[in-house]
Amino acid sequence: MDLATELARRAALVETGLARFVPEASVRPDRLHSAMRYSLEAGGKRLRPVLVLAAAELFSAPPEDALAAAAAVECLHTYSLIHDDLPCLDNDDLRRGRPTAHRAFDEATALLAGDALLTHAFVILTTAYADRPALAHALTRELADAAGSRRLIGGQMEDVLAEKRADVSPADLDFIHLNKTAAMIEASLVMGGLIGGASAPALDSLRAAGRATGLAFQIVDDILDATADTATLGKTAGKDARAGKATYVRIHGLEASRRIAREHTAAALSSIDRLPGDRAFLLALIASMAARAS
Amino acid sequence: MDLATELARRAALVETGLARFVPEASVRPDRLHSAMRYSLEAGGKRLRPVLVLAAAELFSAPPEDALAAAAAVECLHTYSLIHDDLPCLDNDDLRRGRPTAHRAFDEATALLAGDALLTHAFVILTTAYADRPALAHALTRELADAAGSRRLIGGQMEDVLAEKRADVSPADLDFIHLNKTAAMIEASLVMGGLIGGASAPALDSLRAAGRATGLAFQIVDDILDATADTATLGKTAGKDARAGKATYVRIHGLEASRRIAREHTAAALSSIDRLPGDRAFLLALIASMAARAS
Repeated sequence: MDLATELARRAALVETGLARFVPEASVRPDRLHSAMRYSLEAGGKRLRPVLVLAAAELFSAPPEDALAAAAAVECLHTYSLIHDDLPCLDNDDLRRGRPTAHRAFDEATALLAGDALLTHAFVILTTAYADRPALAHALTRELADAAGSRRLIGGQMEDVLAEKRADVSPADLDFIHLNKTAAMIEASLVMGGLIGGASAPALDSLRAAGRATGLAFQIVDDILDATADTATLGKTAGKDARAGKATYVRIHGLEASRRIAREHTAAALSSIDRLPGDRAFLLALIASMAARAS
Repeated sequence: MDLATELARRAALVETGLARFVPEASVRPDRLHSAMRYSLEAGGKRLRPVLVLAAAELFSAPPEDALAAAAAVECLHTYSLIHDDLPCLDNDDLRRGRPTAHRAFDEATALLAGDALLTHAFVILTTAYADRPALAHALTRELADAAGSRRLIGGQMEDVLAEKRADVSPADLDFIHLNKTAAMIEASLVMGGLIGGASAPALDSLRAAGRATGLAFQIVDDILDATADTATLGKTAGKDARAGKATYVRIHGLEASRRIAREHTAAALSSIDRLPGDRAFLLALIASMAARAS
């Protein structure tokens, strides 16, 4: 199995799903739909939607079945990036090497495009799985919980507050990583499992794998912010460090951060290994997420 | 039937629902949950959630059954107000006579509290109706569609764009009103009907009534902005007129606006009269929404 080829194949499927399930830029209001598509089309690695597809495959679900959920997850992730970049939060000008939404359009349009992508994730799930209401319900519930005030947005809020504090504890930082980053990675794997009709223990293993993968992913993000350059990252490097922000590297040091990331990755791989089906792609993908350079 | 008494009884039920279905302010992150509750507790008329309860009653659904949907609708409405008030949109300092969320907290917290309330509407629906997945799915779909890029947010986007244009047509204004205002009023009545197990024709009547009620409501809003004072409104009066904003009054004149609002209200009442059950409260409420002074 060649990871790059297998990843590219699934990422191309995700593009198909996004093109199908997100309104054309010409649909009224065209400025809103243009901004939604601009941010979605900035590309990125499509890791979360690929995890949806990969988890569904383990249970032999047709890839076609998982496309809508993959698109919904990417809409939700993209909304969180658009709002994260806004002047009142990170005030970032660059995302994935291109001007952020509020730079390319304006702040009002970016705010509304984020709102619209968040809402559209639920439109996609409730429309595309309408002929299987129990599945539509389970997927919607999983995504709403992961995106909610105790998880994704909660982690984002604590992250904002942590920037103003000098006394951020390791437990605070774990709360932020667990919710701001791991929640959506967990949900992606679990949603794939739901589409494949996974058993309750299998869903638990997917959730555990997602949690550990998300924690490793965010620690690696902190390591890269401290060690990589802007051109490689496609976003402003060293920003967190300069802002005096509490990061894994700042609190635990670089070596310990690398060790903890490796431990989380090992835990994730071991959870995946408890699942049925052909796990090769998912194992390689998770390993590569921890070893990435950008 | 005394409208004020009947309205107050249902509004009190809505408060119960909000208290039950929205996380306590002390739940981590407490700043986020405090801001969510601050905006919800600003009060307002609770018209949309009361419409959910009233529509469910027509079909003899226990009020208890409609509480969660009512709370979800109010969370969604409150999110739209918080984001609408932000500096990059209306930049309003007052809402319901109190400082807006970004004034009482800060812009980042208000942005995230809005995101969290939007998401929480879906958390409530998918959790509270989990034992009836088909109903949970139908409710979620209705709310997501009404709140999405073609409806609530679409209307909001067109409203923002209209502020910068001198050539706003009557059709443009209708698009804005139909989506920015009527979509959620439609969804409120339809969700009540879904909870009551309404037939497809009854759901159509509820939708038509909601659409006409929403259009009348927004025209009356424009009339009040032009004719009432800030103390009565609990928000800055005359703001739209001063901003040179396209309103019904500006485009059609005061008298024609009053006539069109009356026509929409008559159409709404006639749609309600096609429904079963005790319609007295709903008829009186819709009539009063058109005759209101604030």
